[in-house]
Amino acid sequence: MPELRRDPVIGRWVIISTERSKRPDQFLSGVEKEEFARGEKCPFCEGNESMTPPEIAALRNPGSKPNTPGWDVRVIPYKFPLLIPEGDLNRHGHGMYDIMDAIGAHEIVVETPDHQCEGVPPAGQLAKIFNVVIDRIADLEKDARIKYVLLIKNYGRAAGGGHIKHQRMQLVGTPVNLKRVKEELVGTKQYYDYKDRCIFCDIIKQEQAAQVRVILESKYFIAIMPFASRFPFETWILPKEHSCDFYKTPKDRVCDFADLVSQTFARLRKVIGDFPHNVVLHSAPFRRDLGKRRYWETIDKDYHWHFEILPILTRVAGFEWGSGFYINPLPPEDACKSVREPNQE
Amino acid sequence: MPELRRDPVIGRWVIISTERSKRPDQFLSGVEKEEFARGEKCPFCEGNESMTPPEIAALRNPGSKPNTPGWDVRVIPYKFPLLIPEGDLNRHGHGMYDIMDAIGAHEIVVETPDHQCEGVPPAGQLAKIFNVVIDRIADLEKDARIKYVLLIKNYGRAAGGGHIKHQRMQLVGTPVNLKRVKEELVGTKQYYDYKDRCIFCDIIKQEQAAQVRVILESKYFIAIMPFASRFPFETWILPKEHSCDFYKTPKDRVCDFADLVSQTFARLRKVIGDFPHNVVLHSAPFRRDLGKRRYWETIDKDYHWHFEILPILTRVAGFEWGSGFYINPLPPEDACKSVREPNQE
Repeated sequence: MPELRRDPVIGRWVIISTERSKRPDQFLSGVEKEEFARGEKCPFCEGNESMTPPEIAALRNPGSKPNTPGWDVRVIPYKFPLLIPEGDLNRHGHGMYDIMDAIGAHEIVVETPDHQCEGVPPAGQLAKIFNVVIDRIADLEKDARIKYVLLIKNYGRAAGGGHIKHQRMQLVGTPVNLKRVKEELVGTKQYYDYKDRCIFCDIIKQEQAAQVRVILESKYFIAIMPFASRFPFETWILPKEHSCDFYKTPKDRVCDFADLVSQTFARLRKVIGDFPHNVVLHSAPFRRDLGKRRYWETIDKDYHWHFEILPILTRVAGFEWGSGFYINPLPPEDACKSVREPNQE
Repeated sequence: MPELRRDPVIGRWVIISTERSKRPDQFLSGVEKEEFARGEKCPFCEGNESMTPPEIAALRNPGSKPNTPGWDVRVIPYKFPLLIPEGDLNRHGHGMYDIMDAIGAHEIVVETPDHQCEGVPPAGQLAKIFNVVIDRIADLEKDARIKYVLLIKNYGRAAGGGHIKHQRMQLVGTPVNLKRVKEELVGTKQYYDYKDRCIFCDIIKQEQAAQVRVILESKYFIAIMPFASRFPFETWILPKEHSCDFYKTPKDRVCDFADLVSQTFARLRKVIGDFPHNVVLHSAPFRRDLGKRRYWETIDKDYHWHFEILPILTRVAGFEWGSGFYINPLPPEDACKSVREPNQE
């Protein structure tokens, strides 16, 4: 059973994931782990459904049966889950330390039956994927033990994508609120208390006026490179109308969103090629009506969901680990200019 | 001039380091930057002193002149500094955003004249290095604009060490307090208010009793793998007697510290080889008598300096970026056992 441990000093949680554990000498530096040997069958390909645990959900052709071919998007449990759906949290202490069982959800969203798809699937397929994701988040919301569901994607080796190239995202449902999201919630609440406005709405307005960090806009969404970008070409996509819950996005707007995501990736790929990246979707936590935390009081008005694309083109080193500061060698204005006008470079 | 930008939502600072800037298309994925071409002379070797900016300090043979051979440890300004010693902070706003000039210090501590030294220099040399570092921190403390000095080391490509193998550390003096250190200060203060004891002193006592995460002890120091380790083989070295300022360590204890650091690296190298790693030294900030922050009230009693060795054997991916949580595939107890008894594995 994987275990959640809390750092006693700063309260940071760590998942000790013994299910994936190797012998200590298998961590010898220079030895990259092989998650998928060349020539082996891909478990995410159509026709190989029996290689995975039974599917949780799928967008299927009419008449096709679960765990057989005939799907567009398929959701399966993670084979070595970080968090496990069965059991109780079993919070307990160990001397001065705090532990709980790693209860939660960990699912893989296979984005396409096509093993060869590179970069990001086409807009039509992306809309299908996001609709499936929305249904899964709404379903996980019913599990009272889960406080948050994080959608992530690891693309390329440098971004932790492993050896299997087949496009997929992950959904991670956690039994504790996430440190990074909590920091955002505290910040948005402070701003709201002071200004009576959503900080992300204000950011969108300032960026629309300045037009130096806006990549693209669609009817309902905007893609920008944030003012304090941590990484070269870091990109955020946000709804232009205030909204704190991604999974409540109306279906017609999901198409518009998928379209903008697809176009944004196409622009980025023109400049930085088939770039390794992480994707992170930050949305408001569940069950906030039950919360007594001060930063939950006005969350519907002060928090604004956003989709972060984090290109991994540089390395994080000692300074970032030690300080919590980031070093970005490319101003977002320059990155944005090159993406807006790729032929001028 | 590099620029410090503040993320308006969570207050995270980012250094936009235009001095190192490349054209946007030079970030094309797959293209690793070459910091040092093979065959080129190493600027950190004895005899090549003219390749660097003039030295700030050095431990020299009697009679040898600055910027000539004859040194054991040499401190020079960083060629592409993250922070620059000349000028004022020039804090200003830009609409809703906050900016300041990146004023501070950025120095390289060349650890040895020997280009071939691998892993970590011998204990005697390490003691010389730490004594030079202590003198540099005490000197930087006099600059009223500098609030914190962070000692870091990037060793190996995976840890951001670049192409030059010559052993070196960096000292970064920042004009703002560091997010990561502030989180520790808030945590240690909370614990002190509740228990009237230093949390790190209590951690040391619990680890000494349990003996499952202690690697080694010397007269004055202890090397442990923390309970909530973020990384496989993460190791902290702490003074056993309470102390919040590294740079006030008495000279005789510096030798004992260097000895333990050297032995700890030797133990780790037996199991994980020539491992890429970052080193981070967390000590109390300067000028805390002037501070009005609540977490500075009892800092002398509640904060405890520590030296962190962070082996970079796994990759941080979307989950960590999005959540602020870490995933560690190796329990520290197993890692510690293998390092204590390397022949049993």
